[in-house]
Amino acid sequence: MTMSTALLTDHYELTMLQAALRSGAAHRRAVFEVFARHLPGGRRYGVVAGTGRVLDELRHFRFGEEELAFLREHSVVDEPTLAFLADYRFSGSLYGYREGDLYFPASPIMVVEGTFAEAVLLETMILSILNHDCAIASAASRMTNAAAGRPLIEMGSRRTHERAAVAAARAAYIAGFSFTSNLMAGREFGVPTAGTAAHAFTLLHDSEREAFQAQIASLGESTTLLVDTYDVPDAVRTAVELAGPKLGAVRIDSGDLAAAAQEVREQLDALGAFNTRILVTSDLDEYAIAALAAAPVDGYGVGTSLVTGSGVPTAALVYKLVARETASGTLEPVAKRSVGKPSRGGRKEAFRLLDEQGRFETEVVTTSGVAPEGGLPLLHELVVDGEIVGAEPLTSARDRHRETVALLPQDALHLGRGYAAIPTEFA
Amino acid sequence: MTMSTALLTDHYELTMLQAALRSGAAHRRAVFEVFARHLPGGRRYGVVAGTGRVLDELRHFRFGEEELAFLREHSVVDEPTLAFLADYRFSGSLYGYREGDLYFPASPIMVVEGTFAEAVLLETMILSILNHDCAIASAASRMTNAAAGRPLIEMGSRRTHERAAVAAARAAYIAGFSFTSNLMAGREFGVPTAGTAAHAFTLLHDSEREAFQAQIASLGESTTLLVDTYDVPDAVRTAVELAGPKLGAVRIDSGDLAAAAQEVREQLDALGAFNTRILVTSDLDEYAIAALAAAPVDGYGVGTSLVTGSGVPTAALVYKLVARETASGTLEPVAKRSVGKPSRGGRKEAFRLLDEQGRFETEVVTTSGVAPEGGLPLLHELVVDGEIVGAEPLTSARDRHRETVALLPQDALHLGRGYAAIPTEFA
Repeated sequence: MTMSTALLTDHYELTMLQAALRSGAAHRRAVFEVFARHLPGGRRYGVVAGTGRVLDELRHFRFGEEELAFLREHSVVDEPTLAFLADYRFSGSLYGYREGDLYFPASPIMVVEGTFAEAVLLETMILSILNHDCAIASAASRMTNAAAGRPLIEMGSRRTHERAAVAAARAAYIAGFSFTSNLMAGREFGVPTAGTAAHAFTLLHDSEREAFQAQIASLGESTTLLVDTYDVPDAVRTAVELAGPKLGAVRIDSGDLAAAAQEVREQLDALGAFNTRILVTSDLDEYAIAALAAAPVDGYGVGTSLVTGSGVPTAALVYKLVARETASGTLEPVAKRSVGKPSRGGRKEAFRLLDEQGRFETEVVTTSGVAPEGGLPLLHELVVDGEIVGAEPLTSARDRHRETVALLPQDALHLGRGYAAIPTEFA
Repeated sequence: MTMSTALLTDHYELTMLQAALRSGAAHRRAVFEVFARHLPGGRRYGVVAGTGRVLDELRHFRFGEEELAFLREHSVVDEPTLAFLADYRFSGSLYGYREGDLYFPASPIMVVEGTFAEAVLLETMILSILNHDCAIASAASRMTNAAAGRPLIEMGSRRTHERAAVAAARAAYIAGFSFTSNLMAGREFGVPTAGTAAHAFTLLHDSEREAFQAQIASLGESTTLLVDTYDVPDAVRTAVELAGPKLGAVRIDSGDLAAAAQEVREQLDALGAFNTRILVTSDLDEYAIAALAAAPVDGYGVGTSLVTGSGVPTAALVYKLVARETASGTLEPVAKRSVGKPSRGGRKEAFRLLDEQGRFETEVVTTSGVAPEGGLPLLHELVVDGEIVGAEPLTSARDRHRETVALLPQDALHLGRGYAAIPTEFA
């Protein structure tokens, strides 16, 4: 593995570059935009995530000696192209919706301006990051809504690619999760981490009692004991006997979680452990979380469904050339006419209109450059003339997401399949 | 990003370690096994992939100064545990199904033997890799079968996490894909890369003709021209006019691909371009590929559905403690009794029985240590006493996969939902 992110790129980006360098068109000014033609899975809104990672990876998007040697050895591109790549630094500008904000069909969530050569090279990296992170954050946001204030722990690392897991933890945190199990997400992004023990820990010891004793001795009475390895009522009784009524929490990872939580709550209360929390895990998704709303559950751990986007593992975002300089030097809109894949030419601006109650009403996407009255501007500077200006703390994105979701029309939080929560209008 | 993979680990692995170090149980010998309770998505077989990546990451699984500083600063574990981690080297043994081989429900595709302390730490890394890579390879294998010998190009990098994309390209190659668009997969794993141009290249130029001229001038007449930016028949005519009948290929990325391929084939033949191939792309999956069997298509590019496992983005593999040393020093089988999550205690061996025609008949999983007569042993040494012995070239896994799929019962290649192609018997 290398620090450079430059080869996280599709072969065709470099062959296009080579051919465009040869024709001279590589140096034309160009505008690419990232948008989704639709919200897959009948989702009502998407969540922007990954912007900060794009800026991080842009810093490392350099073709060093090793990368150039690979490209030369495998004849991916010719020598003039290698020379261009050796000097490559993105010197253009990048605008985007802010991380944690929402998006709808056709929202131009990222706009890349530069020469064709420098902008086309970023397609793969930008789309990889945004398609993954937006998909995860969009699913996570639904889970946060369903949990209605109860804390969520992201624990899907074992179910997805080891590096995707780190990005998923970050995206989930933006969308309202409180913790992750993933230590690298703590290290790289400052996401709070959590975890205590799995069934293996109980099975390792000669009895459940010995396992609980060991865990309490080491992690303290505030720890979370996993109570479903053998018999739940037995385990709960042993847990409170050993830890006392200040036992932090018990975790249930199997069975009918609503019924089990009810029984465990009654048992804990009868044992005087009124403040011992009940955490549930086991293939939870937003629907299962919503179904547990009336159960005495104090927190949810979500794994598989979070890291796989709960049925929508990728966000359907595309990166399209919308304007480019002509031979005569003017910037002109362009759009392909491929069947069934509509795209609109021209550099976009985007604004959000609010209704009288201050809730979102319309997403306005315009090529006119004119802001609609009262419209909130959605595109912000991320990179200006090659300089990164849009980095921000992850907690800003998390705060923004919470505040922004609160402004959606109420039916946007329905979990069923539907249409975009607000219409997109082209001005 | 760091070179060490040690923090690609769930928080609870380290707290379990801490508590087990305190109780002394950490040093008990233990056996963990990786298996799937079922094949999700009604798949008939799974494909083992990721083994080689597990061995690579094991080499970098070290808690260095930076990792330890993070763990200390965030009070993840106590000082005795940090001291253990600082010296951590996996000194146990690892056995596994060979990469490219197939698996079925309960197949123990990886067996980890060591002390509890050293084996538990690897859970997250091993499961992340295998759950992702097996899911992708299993989907890819169905696509390879559906393509019936026509070459497949993996081009899903833009639809998944940027590092998952590299692993996906590797897994697809094992399962029979011929190329990837992902340059890092070429660099890190030697997967052949391919690609020519996207719509942006055509739109960049003042006309499609100028774009094609530029591409042919730079990449040669054997290149692949993308013909659906504006009007397909116009583009095909221009393409052959400019490149001549030796034009390598045309690519169609939209519309009714079967009908379009038929029309383009007729047009190419009429223009004398008999050897110009037709490549199709556009949201292909194994079903769409199968539906194009009768169309004059020479190759398929697959993106989204490949990298998302075509509906099954994770393989449902788990990592379970199946045996551990007791206080008295004997190795005993263990299994949890959680509702609905069956697992069988005891260290397994696995064998495959063939019928009279030499096709696979039964997967035998046994704790007896006795091989059934004529059974092919499926578990092979990967790491012995800490030393990696099972690394092999990627092409070996690819060859093995092709040879192994050929031995499945014929109905195993049906694309519809079904049961495992062969039964798993517990001896």
